[in-house]
Amino acid sequence: MSTKVKNQPNGVDVEQLVQTVNAIQDNPDLAKFRFRANTKWMKGGYSRTTVQGFYGAGQEDKSRTEAFVLEGDEPPILLGENRGPNAVESVLQALASCLSVGFSYNAAAQGINVKNLEFDLEGEIDLHGFLGLSDKVRPGYEGIRLTYRVDCDAPPEKVEELWQHVQKTSPVLDILRNPVPVSFVNGN
Amino acid sequence: MSTKVKNQPNGVDVEQLVQTVNAIQDNPDLAKFRFRANTKWMKGGYSRTTVQGFYGAGQEDKSRTEAFVLEGDEPPILLGENRGPNAVESVLQALASCLSVGFSYNAAAQGINVKNLEFDLEGEIDLHGFLGLSDKVRPGYEGIRLTYRVDCDAPPEKVEELWQHVQKTSPVLDILRNPVPVSFVNGN
Repeated sequence: MSTKVKNQPNGVDVEQLVQTVNAIQDNPDLAKFRFRANTKWMKGGYSRTTVQGFYGAGQEDKSRTEAFVLEGDEPPILLGENRGPNAVESVLQALASCLSVGFSYNAAAQGINVKNLEFDLEGEIDLHGFLGLSDKVRPGYEGIRLTYRVDCDAPPEKVEELWQHVQKTSPVLDILRNPVPVSFVNGN
Repeated sequence: MSTKVKNQPNGVDVEQLVQTVNAIQDNPDLAKFRFRANTKWMKGGYSRTTVQGFYGAGQEDKSRTEAFVLEGDEPPILLGENRGPNAVESVLQALASCLSVGFSYNAAAQGINVKNLEFDLEGEIDLHGFLGLSDKVRPGYEGIRLTYRVDCDAPPEKVEELWQHVQKTSPVLDILRNPVPVSFVNGN
């Protein structure tokens, strides 16, 4: 009887990661993904979003038997009822979630064990833009400051190198730092 | 005895909205907000984010007695366990949540009643970037396509005008369409 011990630093299946990379190198189209969401406005600042299926690796993904339901709302000072985080708070979550994945996966690929990884994020916004009170103030974040704390079994210069790679390859960081074309289609 | 009927089209307290706008015109610093999140990596692609306090309108907001907890993960095909939507799916939610608020509030300010508002979002991404397999492919979305359906008591040209205003003033749409400076601080 043979027992196979899986190589899973940081809970990442490195063997599957290598297979994925190899498969994409053989067939570049497997890297094309389309993610989706459906959002219904409920009332005031409150909306509900469902996320379930997506297309990727050459097929429609069926792994999620139920949809994720994400609630968004504003706090009372912004005329909402705190049923969920607001949209710009969700942006901070998306960024840190993305960098968590990137750091954990890339560390695993290099055999680095991560013991702890944590982020504090802060985004500054001036509501003159959102409220239509000034054309000179952008509606979105003027800047995001991210503080990370990491504990892993690699020397500081190796960790720094890893961060550089993670920053270069993070989907959400790219989405924030560089323009994304967004098209509006009237579905009525 | 007098009964006061609040003016709340779309569930939006228009009186409070007007008061907010007036207060900011008197004291522009009230428009400065700082939103925050804290994220802990759990394992593999899984992270947990908490969102609670923020600074805005000249003070620390205390309206949330508990933190929102947001879980992010990857699907199995991307080496995760589907504990939550992934980071780029969260970006779609943030965008639609933001546009919901913008449309609902601006419609309310103009006395337009919204009966229904819904969004389908789709984002295209090529994982060559995230996987570090190509410098020529951006890691983030190549584009986001948003289809909206709206039912409200305004003629189509008025609705179109409203969309133009909402697009111009949406924080998350601005964050996606234009670069946001993101700074990294080593908190170790």
